[in-house]
Amino acid sequence: MGVGGKALGRIIALQKKPRVFQKVEIFDKKVRIRVNRRSGSRSTRRNYGKEMASTMARRFADRHDDSRCESARMVIAKAWVLKKHFDGFPQTSDFDLKNIELPNLKDGGEQSATFTTNFSGGYMLADHTNNPKLMTGVVVSELLLESIFLSVDPYMRPYSRRIMKEGDIMIGTQVARIVESKNPAFTVGTFVVADRGWRTHFISDGKGLQLLPSSWPESLPKSLALGTVGMPGLTAYFGLLEVCKMKPGETVLVNAAAGAVGSVVGQIAKIGGCKVVGCAGSDDKVAYLEKIGFDEVFNYKTVKSVDEALRKASPDGYDCFFDNVGGEFASVAINQMKKYGRIAVCGAISQYNDSVPQKGPYVQMPMIFKELQMEGFLVTRWNSRREEGLQALLKWVMEGKVKCHEQVTEGFENMPMAFIGMLKGENLGKAVVKV
Amino acid sequence: MGVGGKALGRIIALQKKPRVFQKVEIFDKKVRIRVNRRSGSRSTRRNYGKEMASTMARRFADRHDDSRCESARMVIAKAWVLKKHFDGFPQTSDFDLKNIELPNLKDGGEQSATFTTNFSGGYMLADHTNNPKLMTGVVVSELLLESIFLSVDPYMRPYSRRIMKEGDIMIGTQVARIVESKNPAFTVGTFVVADRGWRTHFISDGKGLQLLPSSWPESLPKSLALGTVGMPGLTAYFGLLEVCKMKPGETVLVNAAAGAVGSVVGQIAKIGGCKVVGCAGSDDKVAYLEKIGFDEVFNYKTVKSVDEALRKASPDGYDCFFDNVGGEFASVAINQMKKYGRIAVCGAISQYNDSVPQKGPYVQMPMIFKELQMEGFLVTRWNSRREEGLQALLKWVMEGKVKCHEQVTEGFENMPMAFIGMLKGENLGKAVVKV
Repeated sequence: MGVGGKALGRIIALQKKPRVFQKVEIFDKKVRIRVNRRSGSRSTRRNYGKEMASTMARRFADRHDDSRCESARMVIAKAWVLKKHFDGFPQTSDFDLKNIELPNLKDGGEQSATFTTNFSGGYMLADHTNNPKLMTGVVVSELLLESIFLSVDPYMRPYSRRIMKEGDIMIGTQVARIVESKNPAFTVGTFVVADRGWRTHFISDGKGLQLLPSSWPESLPKSLALGTVGMPGLTAYFGLLEVCKMKPGETVLVNAAAGAVGSVVGQIAKIGGCKVVGCAGSDDKVAYLEKIGFDEVFNYKTVKSVDEALRKASPDGYDCFFDNVGGEFASVAINQMKKYGRIAVCGAISQYNDSVPQKGPYVQMPMIFKELQMEGFLVTRWNSRREEGLQALLKWVMEGKVKCHEQVTEGFENMPMAFIGMLKGENLGKAVVKV
Repeated sequence: MGVGGKALGRIIALQKKPRVFQKVEIFDKKVRIRVNRRSGSRSTRRNYGKEMASTMARRFADRHDDSRCESARMVIAKAWVLKKHFDGFPQTSDFDLKNIELPNLKDGGEQSATFTTNFSGGYMLADHTNNPKLMTGVVVSELLLESIFLSVDPYMRPYSRRIMKEGDIMIGTQVARIVESKNPAFTVGTFVVADRGWRTHFISDGKGLQLLPSSWPESLPKSLALGTVGMPGLTAYFGLLEVCKMKPGETVLVNAAAGAVGSVVGQIAKIGGCKVVGCAGSDDKVAYLEKIGFDEVFNYKTVKSVDEALRKASPDGYDCFFDNVGGEFASVAINQMKKYGRIAVCGAISQYNDSVPQKGPYVQMPMIFKELQMEGFLVTRWNSRREEGLQALLKWVMEGKVKCHEQVTEGFENMPMAFIGMLKGENLGKAVVKV
């Protein structure tokens, strides 16, 4: 018994970077997968392992059931493709709108194969005869989903360069609704958050779909699952609690404060008993930040000196600095940190569109004299605590302690424009696109 | 009863920065001192409090015993004074050698007053009638000490600008011997580490003098108390353990690796089961580092590319980077850190002599993508664990696990030269001056 060298060869070739699998061998009751232990982190390897186990399972099912196609309705998905890598500021001409014909949904029915995997001596062993232990890949029946809201976020700019090639569908997340389901575990009409890029429709086997928190009230816009009660909210939450380690009575500085992350940072810091200083790039944003409870706010584009403005806002300096911007602002702010201050480096939007990297003063001297901590972070680090974060955010939103503002662009065709506008800082709060 | 407004006024005026005391009032049985709660950290205020208590005690003693002078021997101390602030690289003409006539030693005899102090509502209360509680200031009899070895360290360059004014005696530490003592607690002939700047002799009331560890073997040069078994060794110890949080099996990078701190960093990292990569600025230094057990070493001045050299030394990157240099080297190294890597910013010798601050690439992007931690530190943070560190270092030195090299310049008159040479990297290991 074996799946065949060619198919396995394809699995290996098709894997995304970092390349985890070096060799796959099928034995009677085992699948032996050679894992490249130098590639990615342990958790990356594990996640890939899960995917692999599932792919293997599907292939087994394929051999036993070639007659699963029963739906004949044809769905055409629209998708935005990265035509060419951004050079400097993204332009609409860097994108291409494509139609993609979706295949019929697969129905796994009773057919399933289960793999368990574990890591040992550089190999990942997948045993399809045992019960699931570490991870399982079961042939699940498929679902068809339509995107309702799509997110445009700053990270897409640097990550397009890091993880995409030209011709790929733009990366990103969406709130999507299940419109067809072959799997009784997923009910038509359910809303989920998915990570399937800029497209209107997609097929899923259910993996990686995240249900909205069960306590999500009907009255709350589901788009917030991409913002305050989603990745940006979690970024603010874990960045403040785990990286800044904010304590009551401290002074917290946040830039891009009217953005999706910044606005939540300021409000959580207030809940945590801190004094909050924020800056933003328009008077409207400044007015909004005052309204939602920031203690001190200024427009960095119109103040005579950012240094002076920061000094005035908190004459005795800052304990925490939640940095979404980097660059010049960060260089000024670092000199106003208090002893043992903490800098959470969340984003560097001032640098994402540089063709030639900007330069600034070295950080070492202020780091030493004030014994500062600086830490870069990605919210994915706390994936295992996602539920905790979402519940906290949802509660604060429902209590009115965290207010949300969204900049909604209508129409899937306007995604590039919404993305570019967000990078220019045209949005107040979270920028989303309603399909 | 009162000490008098004028004397108290002088105490307040003479205090070093940060100014802690705003007002001192003497009552019958209390001394009430107004503390500026914005000045310095809590521990700074507490330390100043101790000094103040002692000063007060001495003044009380002065009133009761004006006939303490018994020694008539005159001692002339030599001292190096900062004639003018360094501009760019220090020059010998920035220093002035002065003679200072030392007064006779005071003998507190039986006279003493004790103060206890505590902080309450912005006031520090010093009660000279109660037993010591938080801190005490007793009139101690004085000692005369002569410096045997003096330290020249990189920190003196930036700190001269930060804490000294022109005409001050250069800051620094020494190993000194007690040559005369009015206090039975301090025996003539005892060696201590003191923090009294570039001078051959000084009078002390015993406060701030640190005895060498009691287990110090006769065979071990006492100058090491300024190096491997002193501040630089402690810097390596706490920087690696507490800031880098090094773990066995990790790869540690250290620059200025043949210096007083770097050479200890590499050896402790080896003891801790790490792979150690070091770089230095001469082939002799590189050879020395190989001899003391570094795994990979290169001369950053002669390699074609630091980036390539770092990549070759550890193709899969660095977990820990102990940075003594900053600047360009740090900018290259940060891009070769592993995910969740830790950077301990100990020094920035590449920037100390800049008249115009240098610029380099911003750090935010690599900090985020690799989720790096960077922390600046001063060894004083772990003053309370000094004994632990010194004992560990002394043990390793005695076991031969940490080797020490010293660059000894003979003659107090050569201190500026030794200091300048050290800043130029002419020393291998710790640079000290033998008086």
